[in-house]
Amino acid sequence: MAERRRKFWGWGYEDERLGDDEERRVLEGWADRLGVDAEAFERLPVPDAGDIELGAPRIDPPSRVAGICSTDTYDRLLHTYGQSIPDLARAFMKDFANAPDYVAHAKTEEDVTAVLDWATGAGVAVIPFGGGSSATGGVEPAVGGGFNGAISLDLGGLDKVLEIDRTSRAARIQAGIFGPALEAALKPEGLTLRHFPQSFSHSTLGGWIATRAGGHFATLYTHVDDFVESLRTVTPAGVMESRRLPGSGAGPSPDRLMMGSEGALGVITEAWMRLQDRPTHRAAASVYFADIYDGAEAIRAVGQAGLYPSNLRLLDPMEARITDAGDGTRALAVLAFESADHPVDAWMGRALEIVADHGGEFDPEEVANPDAHISGSAGAWRAAFIRMPYYREFLTANAVINDTFETAITWDRFRAFHDDVKAAAEAAMEEATGKSGVITCRFTHVYPDGPAPYFTYHCLSRHGALLEHWRYIKERASDAVIAGGGTITHHHAVGRDHMPWYERQRPSLFGEAVAAAKAKLDPAGILNPGVIVPAPGR
Amino acid sequence: MAERRRKFWGWGYEDERLGDDEERRVLEGWADRLGVDAEAFERLPVPDAGDIELGAPRIDPPSRVAGICSTDTYDRLLHTYGQSIPDLARAFMKDFANAPDYVAHAKTEEDVTAVLDWATGAGVAVIPFGGGSSATGGVEPAVGGGFNGAISLDLGGLDKVLEIDRTSRAARIQAGIFGPALEAALKPEGLTLRHFPQSFSHSTLGGWIATRAGGHFATLYTHVDDFVESLRTVTPAGVMESRRLPGSGAGPSPDRLMMGSEGALGVITEAWMRLQDRPTHRAAASVYFADIYDGAEAIRAVGQAGLYPSNLRLLDPMEARITDAGDGTRALAVLAFESADHPVDAWMGRALEIVADHGGEFDPEEVANPDAHISGSAGAWRAAFIRMPYYREFLTANAVINDTFETAITWDRFRAFHDDVKAAAEAAMEEATGKSGVITCRFTHVYPDGPAPYFTYHCLSRHGALLEHWRYIKERASDAVIAGGGTITHHHAVGRDHMPWYERQRPSLFGEAVAAAKAKLDPAGILNPGVIVPAPGR
Repeated sequence: MAERRRKFWGWGYEDERLGDDEERRVLEGWADRLGVDAEAFERLPVPDAGDIELGAPRIDPPSRVAGICSTDTYDRLLHTYGQSIPDLARAFMKDFANAPDYVAHAKTEEDVTAVLDWATGAGVAVIPFGGGSSATGGVEPAVGGGFNGAISLDLGGLDKVLEIDRTSRAARIQAGIFGPALEAALKPEGLTLRHFPQSFSHSTLGGWIATRAGGHFATLYTHVDDFVESLRTVTPAGVMESRRLPGSGAGPSPDRLMMGSEGALGVITEAWMRLQDRPTHRAAASVYFADIYDGAEAIRAVGQAGLYPSNLRLLDPMEARITDAGDGTRALAVLAFESADHPVDAWMGRALEIVADHGGEFDPEEVANPDAHISGSAGAWRAAFIRMPYYREFLTANAVINDTFETAITWDRFRAFHDDVKAAAEAAMEEATGKSGVITCRFTHVYPDGPAPYFTYHCLSRHGALLEHWRYIKERASDAVIAGGGTITHHHAVGRDHMPWYERQRPSLFGEAVAAAKAKLDPAGILNPGVIVPAPGR
Repeated sequence: MAERRRKFWGWGYEDERLGDDEERRVLEGWADRLGVDAEAFERLPVPDAGDIELGAPRIDPPSRVAGICSTDTYDRLLHTYGQSIPDLARAFMKDFANAPDYVAHAKTEEDVTAVLDWATGAGVAVIPFGGGSSATGGVEPAVGGGFNGAISLDLGGLDKVLEIDRTSRAARIQAGIFGPALEAALKPEGLTLRHFPQSFSHSTLGGWIATRAGGHFATLYTHVDDFVESLRTVTPAGVMESRRLPGSGAGPSPDRLMMGSEGALGVITEAWMRLQDRPTHRAAASVYFADIYDGAEAIRAVGQAGLYPSNLRLLDPMEARITDAGDGTRALAVLAFESADHPVDAWMGRALEIVADHGGEFDPEEVANPDAHISGSAGAWRAAFIRMPYYREFLTANAVINDTFETAITWDRFRAFHDDVKAAAEAAMEEATGKSGVITCRFTHVYPDGPAPYFTYHCLSRHGALLEHWRYIKERASDAVIAGGGTITHHHAVGRDHMPWYERQRPSLFGEAVAAAKAKLDPAGILNPGVIVPAPGR
């Protein structure tokens, strides 16, 4: 049986596509919401690898490296892009100008070392590649002219759970393992990492850590960061491994430097991860509010109460409607608790008191339903959440830009920030495409001091102009996020797409400090050039 | 009225001493436990500043800096040492060889900049000084011969809460503020930082952040780290300020590099701190176990249950006895919950079920007492905890070494680690002093993947040999901590005392990366030389 292959042009496997009914429903829905005729959509066909001509590799690795390298066209295409809108758009346009010269498939840490050693001497850029789900240009070998070539270093062969410490609830895991395989390996022990980003099925542990991915929990353990007990990283200067420690106060945290380094400081090969028992107690509720502002006040109160719900997501009315979780007249909060240890009634009871005090409405019968987290509004939202990446690919092929950006802001600034960012994106969509678009907002994560608003926008572009339109909107929206005091990314990473705003956001001296650290760890500057640390001479 | 002055030789204010009864009780207790005659104690008198000759300052700052500098003997003595055993011992021996040439009293950020600018050009070491409570040699101007002088930079003049954001529950606070003043300024708003290290009354916000101090909460918010929303830091290369963000995934965290930098990368001048509402609901219980191992199993189960008690401290039988919290036959766990939002009965109820399942015994009547957290065993422990620094000074004057060291270890290794470290310290006490000492253990903080064991040891030394004895014991105990896989410090910081073990613990490449960052932020290497980053040419 042939191995199931992932799409080089979009989300999921090659054999996966939306059904005819689903396609029609999505297009009709967007025709309606964007006020355009369904005939307006012009669909590009799925690209055929056979139609795409890649240049011959510019470099010639020695046998130790060549032995793990592939020059197969499909492989090079698959490793050219992540899942950002410009990535999808260019894939459908069959533009693979930045394809890597080779794809190195590391099966061992020695393979990683061999690639870095050679590349350092040969002036070849190396792009660490996990699942390739970057939505911000993090894996594209767009490294400029300063290198003799570029290699995509696929870590997918480092896919084992090596050791489980049931007592401490931790496991030593190789970085290239994908989400489903990771959970499958932990399940027999009754353990789980409980890190479920939207990309779960097509992203890896190392990718999550390198990009500070956001996961399952809406509060407390929002990023994968806190689940990291220790890290092992291969750099061009050698191996760096931190101790397994439940906590420490010995100097700045070594792991916190590597988290968020996005492949620019080293290649994470292993991690000891903190795990949890599989939850057995659950409670969920859908709570309705007049609008996102009322909802936000309630969510703030729950978020500041020390209850730590696993889910505390708030959808504005239109976001609820688009995901079939609401009818568009009210904002919806999805509230859930889970535990492997105890019934969560007291927790949910208090949370419902708080939201009721803030005008939230809910159906007590739904709350009493033990399957509430997978039925009703919460269930509809969950189903839509899993389908979104497929819609994203399909809509791009139809010249609908449907992108998202996420940020975080303190509560005192939330309302003005939300309104300003939304207005900037709305104006940009209109200016770019000549037609109004739709922008919606939800909270993906909630902190005691502020929410993480996640914006989704849709507008009708046209093939040929889509990249330019997207860039215009991206720039205006990002400018507004930075001007309003937000972060350019809460959990989608910096990549290449966010670098200009990242450089405005992070303290410039910190940028210099990280660049100095990179010069020590990666003296030739071959690791993911242009990401996190600006490429020299730019 | 004259300002109340802090002791330059020990803990607290000059007018504070133990009462005669308390002194007698402490000495008789230790004579008994150490198996020596109470006559064996030889007490050094409190040093008199008038007896101590300091050399004239070796340097001559320009008027901008001189205007905020003091050469007062008391001031220079106060800024020579922290509160480590060798600090106390040398103070009682009137050895102040490393006194700073000047003490600069910064009242503004411009003062800090002026000192750093001048010192960078003049080759003068600058030791940032908050409350001077370092227990690991973090503030002593022991900078070696590579500098033209040394200045202690006292931040105590930066002592204001500048701004309170009640909505987000955060405040912008100057780094030099002491614990009590900080809490007093927040109280009218009903807010609290709830960071209460043992040093609370004589330590500062900036010191807590720079050393990753451990605070009030035994679980979840164990270090001050998680309360930091953003930081403002002055470095010789300029000012570094991070954005106020509830959460972010934009590259490695700038704040996490400064946390734990212990004054070696910059001088923290301000922070936005995450606050909490003042708790109104409380529950506490004292739970008894046969020994620390049985107790540890129960504590592990509670720590892995997702209940997040504010207190989850475990004392071994002898530690409980010494602090009057137990009779020495059983281990004692102090368990507490607190909330500003809701009664904590369900939380405490479940925690008590868990400890009972693990053989823990408790008095249901005590649990029902709303003042349980300040009465009974918990209250006795709390009272002793606050007196400990005074005993430490008093015992040092009596040639009893009474030091502590704290670490963290995963649960799977705890028992062997505990036994090995304890045995190493016991052997070292015997070898150094010729007499057996007493070592006890408690857990100060508990993580799902392991505890933070805190060891306290006492042995009778003699004046003249105390420093040498202490060093011998410190080295053996630290070797055992590192060999067993622990951290050289969980929340007491690295300072100068822990550098050799810190260098064995942290990945060496990470050390090089931090040194490279320091070279960028502090090009002349004047900031707290020898701490975190080894002094050049050492």
